[in-house]
Amino acid sequence: MTRWGTNRIEAFSDGVFAIAITLLVLDLHVPETSDDLLQGILDAWPSYLAYGTSFLTIGGIWLAHHALFARLRQVSASLLRANLLLLMAVAFVPYPTRLVAQSIHSESAERTAVVFYGLTLLVVAIIAAVMWRFVAFSPDLLRPEFSLEEVRSLARRAEPNLAFYAAFTAFGLVVPRAAAFGYIVVAVLQVLRVRGDEAPAGVAAS
Amino acid sequence: MTRWGTNRIEAFSDGVFAIAITLLVLDLHVPETSDDLLQGILDAWPSYLAYGTSFLTIGGIWLAHHALFARLRQVSASLLRANLLLLMAVAFVPYPTRLVAQSIHSESAERTAVVFYGLTLLVVAIIAAVMWRFVAFSPDLLRPEFSLEEVRSLARRAEPNLAFYAAFTAFGLVVPRAAAFGYIVVAVLQVLRVRGDEAPAGVAAS
Amino acid sequence: MTRWGTNRIEAFSDGVFAIAITLLVLDLHVPETSDDLLQGILDAWPSYLAYGTSFLTIGGIWLAHHALFARLRQVSASLLRANLLLLMAVAFVPYPTRLVAQSIHSESAERTAVVFYGLTLLVVAIIAAVMWRFVAFSPDLLRPEFSLEEVRSLARRAEPNLAFYAAFTAFGLVVPRAAAFGYIVVAVLQVLRVRGDEAPAGVAAS
Amino acid sequence: MTRWGTNRIEAFSDGVFAIAITLLVLDLHVPETSDDLLQGILDAWPSYLAYGTSFLTIGGIWLAHHALFARLRQVSASLLRANLLLLMAVAFVPYPTRLVAQSIHSESAERTAVVFYGLTLLVVAIIAAVMWRFVAFSPDLLRPEFSLEEVRSLARRAEPNLAFYAAFTAFGLVVPRAAAFGYIVVAVLQVLRVRGDEAPAGVAAS
Repeated sequence: MTRWGTNRIEAFSDGVFAIAITLLVLDLHVPETSDDLLQGILDAWPSYLAYGTSFLTIGGIWLAHHALFARLRQVSASLLRANLLLLMAVAFVPYPTRLVAQSIHSESAERTAVVFYGLTLLVVAIIAAVMWRFVAFSPDLLRPEFSLEEVRSLARRAEPNLAFYAAFTAFGLVVPRAAAFGYIVVAVLQVLRVRGDEAPAGVAAS
Repeated sequence: MTRWGTNRIEAFSDGVFAIAITLLVLDLHVPETSDDLLQGILDAWPSYLAYGTSFLTIGGIWLAHHALFARLRQVSASLLRANLLLLMAVAFVPYPTRLVAQSIHSESAERTAVVFYGLTLLVVAIIAAVMWRFVAFSPDLLRPEFSLEEVRSLARRAEPNLAFYAAFTAFGLVVPRAAAFGYIVVAVLQVLRVRGDEAPAGVAAS
Repeated sequence: MTRWGTNRIEAFSDGVFAIAITLLVLDLHVPETSDDLLQGILDAWPSYLAYGTSFLTIGGIWLAHHALFARLRQVSASLLRANLLLLMAVAFVPYPTRLVAQSIHSESAERTAVVFYGLTLLVVAIIAAVMWRFVAFSPDLLRPEFSLEEVRSLARRAEPNLAFYAAFTAFGLVVPRAAAFGYIVVAVLQVLRVRGDEAPAGVAAS
Repeated sequence: MTRWGTNRIEAFSDGVFAIAITLLVLDLHVPETSDDLLQGILDAWPSYLAYGTSFLTIGGIWLAHHALFARLRQVSASLLRANLLLLMAVAFVPYPTRLVAQSIHSESAERTAVVFYGLTLLVVAIIAAVMWRFVAFSPDLLRPEFSLEEVRSLARRAEPNLAFYAAFTAFGLVVPRAAAFGYIVVAVLQVLRVRGDEAPAGVAAS
């Protein structure tokens, strides 16, 4: 079976993550309806919230991706394809981000946008969980210094995200604005949980 | 004769692939004609189809590019120039993608856009096939662990794409919408065919 | 405690820096109010000033980031999170840049935009200073060939930026246009100060 | 004196080159004045010409940059700063490209745009020539396997570009459209001249 080295896949993935995360700024606009620039900047708060949420969400996925690939010595064709799907979903995130930023002042649009945004993050989280679980059952892909048990515990840690996104998306049908704040909480938690105490001593060398 | 190392060429190419693939999201818009955001999101389906098709097409070319360069120990000036042409064609893909997404609701524009899109993918596939074939006849560019025969069989595998794109483009003149679905089928096949059973054991180490 | 290698963090950060710095060009427009293109190009001078200032500012932060990471042998989770915040702030810079470029012909908007721009750069400088100081007190993160003293002196050199940005931002409340020129002076100084005489002989090897 | 390794500078530069070259596609639009999409696509020929010219020009500079840095074992602070200026000029290229594409149907705007475009390329070529010449007189920056003579001959080869761009820009004042074709000829020649017969055998290993 074909196996791929991890270097160029990491480089390409890093490129997509970095671009998706940086393109978010293109959707920050000052509402033209206001005469006063200060008021306009303040009125654009949903854009900043959406920017911060998506930035931290993509950043969190990048951290998890980094942690996953640091444990791999090679990549299988299936994992390569799953990675391409993950990148397709991540690169899509700026679109629902834009919808949320644009629609938060209109009640019915807000509900649709927040649910659509949540569904996108749910899809991203599902693909990431599948990749993680796939690696957790592919001992031949791992570097020898990492154990399957450790990767399985990492995989289990990623799964609550699925429940969070599903719950907040459903919640968004009822109280969209509260769900919007829920997404940022998940993103912050995801970045904060990158403590990774379970990693063996050899990690830094990778 | 001058020879170039592959590292920085791969890095630059990865950058262009990653950016072209991620810029596609900038062309996703919600039609403003609809009052209802949900309806608007659903009406934008040609944009999602175009996004998915172009993402998978560029992703598939990246996979093929990766496979090609993993087999090289050095790059000649001709290959370097061909690579620049390939990148120029790949970086162009978001433009016909946008045309297809915008015009699929108008019958005459749809035909033009679908054919233009197909011609662009055909040009990309031709340049890729030429690069592959060039390598297949340049033993001095290959790493010693790969054989010319293996590269030639890879080169032959890339050639049906030419026929597919030519056929679907011609077909697009008659039934544009069906051709649009044809392109995504080629893209998916291209990603699925990355099994590469013919690669020798040493590949993963590269 | 988990430690991370520096390679992929540098690659991802380089990506964000490079994209943020290159996206600045998207906000260069010729004012449509003018019939004469030459006049239009000349009238767009605030855009060029904003482009140059933000380019050199982000470039200067990249240089500092490069110098910091060249001294690290590993990255802690806290530093990783601080780096993500730094990238979030850097990727945000094109937005206030656009506001400055658009508003410099209107007096009240100019004041708001210049102060908002200054506050953004101040936030970037604060995060950078915190990262620097954090490293200066984390001997286990340093490569053995660098001393804490040297990193502390680098950290101290970064701190005047805080005072400059705070001062120019306050000044911008009174004389916005002068503050705008102040920011470019800081950016140029930051790039010019990259002489780094204090680095030991081993730096180039990193 | 401080010296910097070349790796991360190359990575950052590659990022900026790759992004600038790929952003060019964002300025391809179909003129809305035409009912017929095919006619619209054909009418957009100045955009394609501008896209191709700028793509090949930036690609040619990237090739030259690659060749320069492949010969370096370390980078001085001055070269680092010159590199930042080069990137600032390269990242600026999409702006005059857009002006040329937009104005080629209007005679007076065409002249201004073509001259402005030529001046931008002239500035890029000047910075590149200065960097080359700087390296040609800095023996301590070179890898031991390259000689100053060889780098000087490379530096001399880059200098005709200055004359070409100056001549075509002046020519653009009189016959703008012919000058526009002149720029693409220079770009193609620059890419074709990358044969580099003068490089020693060790190049490919770098």
